Amino acid sequence: MEVNRICNFNAGPAALPEPVLQELQENVLNFQNCCMSILEISHRSNDFDNVINDAVARTKRLLGIGDNYHVLFLQGGASLQFAMIPMNFLAEGRTADYINTGTWSTKAIKEAQIQKKNFNVAASSEDRNFAYIPKEFSFNPDATFVHITSNNTIKGTQWDQFPDTGDVPLIADMSSDFMCRPIDMSKFGMIYVGAQKNIGPAGVCMVIVRDDMLKLIPDGLPTMLDYRTHVEKNSMYNTPPCFAIYTVQLVLKWLEETVGGLGEMEKINRKKAELLYAAFDESDFYKGTADLDSRSMMNVTFRLPSEELEKKFIDQAAQNGLGGLKGHRSVGGCRASIYNATTVENVEKLISFMKEFENRNK
Amino acid sequence: MEVNRICNFNAGPAALPEPVLQELQENVLNFQNCCMSILEISHRSNDFDNVINDAVARTKRLLGIGDNYHVLFLQGGASLQFAMIPMNFLAEGRTADYINTGTWSTKAIKEAQIQKKNFNVAASSEDRNFAYIPKEFSFNPDATFVHITSNNTIKGTQWDQFPDTGDVPLIADMSSDFMCRPIDMSKFGMIYVGAQKNIGPAGVCMVIVRDDMLKLIPDGLPTMLDYRTHVEKNSMYNTPPCFAIYTVQLVLKWLEETVGGLGEMEKINRKKAELLYAAFDESDFYKGTADLDSRSMMNVTFRLPSEELEKKFIDQAAQNGLGGLKGHRSVGGCRASIYNATTVENVEKLISFMKEFENRNK
Repeated sequence: MEVNRICNFNAGPAALPEPVLQELQENVLNFQNCCMSILEISHRSNDFDNVINDAVARTKRLLGIGDNYHVLFLQGGASLQFAMIPMNFLAEGRTADYINTGTWSTKAIKEAQIQKKNFNVAASSEDRNFAYIPKEFSFNPDATFVHITSNNTIKGTQWDQFPDTGDVPLIADMSSDFMCRPIDMSKFGMIYVGAQKNIGPAGVCMVIVRDDMLKLIPDGLPTMLDYRTHVEKNSMYNTPPCFAIYTVQLVLKWLEETVGGLGEMEKINRKKAELLYAAFDESDFYKGTADLDSRSMMNVTFRLPSEELEKKFIDQAAQNGLGGLKGHRSVGGCRASIYNATTVENVEKLISFMKEFENRNK
Repeated sequence: MEVNRICNFNAGPAALPEPVLQELQENVLNFQNCCMSILEISHRSNDFDNVINDAVARTKRLLGIGDNYHVLFLQGGASLQFAMIPMNFLAEGRTADYINTGTWSTKAIKEAQIQKKNFNVAASSEDRNFAYIPKEFSFNPDATFVHITSNNTIKGTQWDQFPDTGDVPLIADMSSDFMCRPIDMSKFGMIYVGAQKNIGPAGVCMVIVRDDMLKLIPDGLPTMLDYRTHVEKNSMYNTPPCFAIYTVQLVLKWLEETVGGLGEMEKINRKKAELLYAAFDESDFYKGTADLDSRSMMNVTFRLPSEELEKKFIDQAAQNGLGGLKGHRSVGGCRASIYNATTVENVEKLISFMKEFENRNK
């Protein structure tokens, strides 16, 4: 690898594993020696069937799920899922519980509201500016599902244990921590994932939906907005985002074959997060913004003593090859996103820069 | 260019200009020397702002449109547009005329039907299996829009002149002939384009909508399905398909700077189509399937004397480096898609193979 590359702490689109980028580069002009670019092959070809079927099979193996789950590759991001979920699963007479842990949960709730669906906000951490994951809930046992956002990129919080909802299936937006660790999929009726944070590039949204959920869908939905359309056609009712799916396939291959699965991935992710949080906890200069028991393994949010110092920190970090450290525009401060593709080495470089910066500026 | 590349006559995803693929390849690891891949940069960065704003500006220049048109980059392909059009423009009390010229028009009509909207099929060529573009219509002067499919990839037909709809705006699915020639945009309230045929890769749908159309949109639509959301946020309400938009930008740059605009593009496209159709018209062996006055410049559909010969033709062509010549699975036969990126030289290679094949097999 001779190219000069930055340590990329972007929140999404975010860093991809370098071996994946190299394989993409090799296939941009001539995909697997078919003498066409991956961008030029038909989605109805055997070549592309192999890509999408391999991506589905790897997803099932990595998550340990069987054929009662359908793995879909859709468009429109998690934001379109916010609308499709109530449209598909909250027909007349049904109700759902939503837990509000930040910007993305709030948006998911808003789309149920726009459609005038019955739902209840079963818990919220809005009272303390979403700095924590709620611990107490009172779920409606008649709810069709409970909706959560598993990780909050903006506030740097993450569900450590998922809530016990009894027989009611969870639906989770896992855009920012999908495949960062093994999970017990049997709790989930559906998960959905904008790929551009932890599993691929912008432009594809993975949906993993359990078979029994499909029975809830009312007839009469627009074809593209009915999950059954995509289940029946293996995500190829219309032309899918082929290049984005191919990139996801390569990331899944890297997760299985190079990293060694989600158990190994979790060990690496925990190590990175522990190193970085330890650097805060030893210092009075940097302060984490999330409650200790709600800290995210993926997005580490922190403040410096002043906004002026934060700006200086972000600028000098960038000059030192550490990019993407600015907090979300809605909250300010600093944020290091340390998704699966971020190496321990890059986190160590960040910590060492943080120490230097503190010494120069405290 | 040392890579061995096929002559690609795929219907979509389809051939892209080679200089575009080379530029993509160079930027997969290090985008414009920012030390990150184009897949890894934030959509909120200046780097990506420059990409999307340049793509919008080039689109406006190439089409000769002003700021009363909005250029959007959406997801879900033309198929999602089939549903969004009636949702946005056919509120209670409104009606529309649709012209049915094949599979894609039929699908657009079906989505208006699913939503129980008022509409009328003002003309159809279904009586002769969609082999022609209708010439006679009776439009409803109170219609909110008239919907057409400008080019039919499956049947190989194309509107030469667009119908005169008076003050009623046209809405056109131009997925398969967008920017193949200059058009008079003042007739159009909206056009939409799945990029993967003539303007880019799969995974992005361009929508060009006139300002006055936005006033028709009722409140209460799901956020992602309301065109105003995307107009207000310059296609970045949520993370857009960055790589696909970047590829479109490069294709637009190629159209402007290398080809020299849509007038020049049309000359090249007419030449390719004339050469290929002339090869049929001189032969009793190959027969075009579309009526003479409705022939497409983009998708040339033809039959051989038997299905057996068609299979042999497609196989031997592939062995000779001519790919993608199989007709759509719903109609069989042969099809050469000769979009903007297909060179005259590649069409000449196809014609010369056709002549050889005829001599060997007639």
